[in-house]
Amino acid sequence: MQYPKPVANLIDSYMKLPGIGEKTAVRLAFFTIDMDDEDVQEFASSLKAVKTQLQYCSICGNITDTNPCEICSNPHRNSEQILVVEQPKDIMAMENMHGYQGLYQVLGGVLSPVNGVGPDDLNIKHLLHRLKDNSQVKEVIVATNATPEGEATAMYLAKLIKPAQIKVTRLAHGLAVGADIEYADQMTLQRAVEGRQQI
Amino acid sequence: MQYPKPVANLIDSYMKLPGIGEKTAVRLAFFTIDMDDEDVQEFASSLKAVKTQLQYCSICGNITDTNPCEICSNPHRNSEQILVVEQPKDIMAMENMHGYQGLYQVLGGVLSPVNGVGPDDLNIKHLLHRLKDNSQVKEVIVATNATPEGEATAMYLAKLIKPAQIKVTRLAHGLAVGADIEYADQMTLQRAVEGRQQI
Repeated sequence: MQYPKPVANLIDSYMKLPGIGEKTAVRLAFFTIDMDDEDVQEFASSLKAVKTQLQYCSICGNITDTNPCEICSNPHRNSEQILVVEQPKDIMAMENMHGYQGLYQVLGGVLSPVNGVGPDDLNIKHLLHRLKDNSQVKEVIVATNATPEGEATAMYLAKLIKPAQIKVTRLAHGLAVGADIEYADQMTLQRAVEGRQQI
Repeated sequence: MQYPKPVANLIDSYMKLPGIGEKTAVRLAFFTIDMDDEDVQEFASSLKAVKTQLQYCSICGNITDTNPCEICSNPHRNSEQILVVEQPKDIMAMENMHGYQGLYQVLGGVLSPVNGVGPDDLNIKHLLHRLKDNSQVKEVIVATNATPEGEATAMYLAKLIKPAQIKVTRLAHGLAVGADIEYADQMTLQRAVEGRQQI
């Protein structure tokens, strides 16, 4: 016996989400059947809303429902700093830290010749235009991930931006707070030693 | 900074699903933003469909999009057996086994005085009517779960049905296929010994 068609369709949809296999999808589908009508309607509308009401900020490339985004249009942010991230969700992580008051630039990925991603596929030109048009910027903080591609992208950006007399920095890499030295991987440990600071 | 409203709403919706905490919900929401438009539309429609197109079978209480359900309306099923389950999803599990050809009855739960669930809250009267109206039934297989409530419900049903000269059986409990005796819990092991069979 097959599941009734509406149930089978919902299971299929749940299975398209990352980390959700068939068993979990079945469990979620049956849970959905028992959910409040209202909650399911809200769920369906919010799914549609993220595809229709969201756009990319024309300045920084963040995901937003207003253009420019909340951050770019906030006059209290420090316009002397631009922090460069790979993805919009990296901005959310930085903002949740509540320690950075500057602006952002989303690259939309990292340079990756293997995957055919070159400088023109990222928002690099846009970033350079922003730096040229806005003489206020004094520091570009490159916050790409610590992958080989992320590192290469950081180096590439540094080379492009430094001639404009703008300071280019990179987020510190080292031991995570609370992490045991015993369990740290070699690369992390090496970075922690290289980046050691006087106390 | 808060997530843009459409994203925050979707995160809230995902968090209403079982086993999905905030971090996973955020990950799923950002994944959804990058999904194909079509897939998201389908997801939204299938969510609505399970609330609008599904109903309970008027005979067995299974979840179905046709009434009576596919099983109750199938003339090839053996109408001499009725297998009693707690929930519609138990029927799906039995059907996936491909070894049972009889009919079903969904109770809609188990007797649980602590939670205020009495015989009138379950489809027990409906089951008794089915047995009375249909003299073909020769066996009722009680497949409630092996919890204290499931056991009590099985005993209760047996007491009600036996006077009608209908055989009442219970699914065998014992070691799962492939399970190690070493790791089996005491109750399971006890059931396995009690239910031992000659070879």
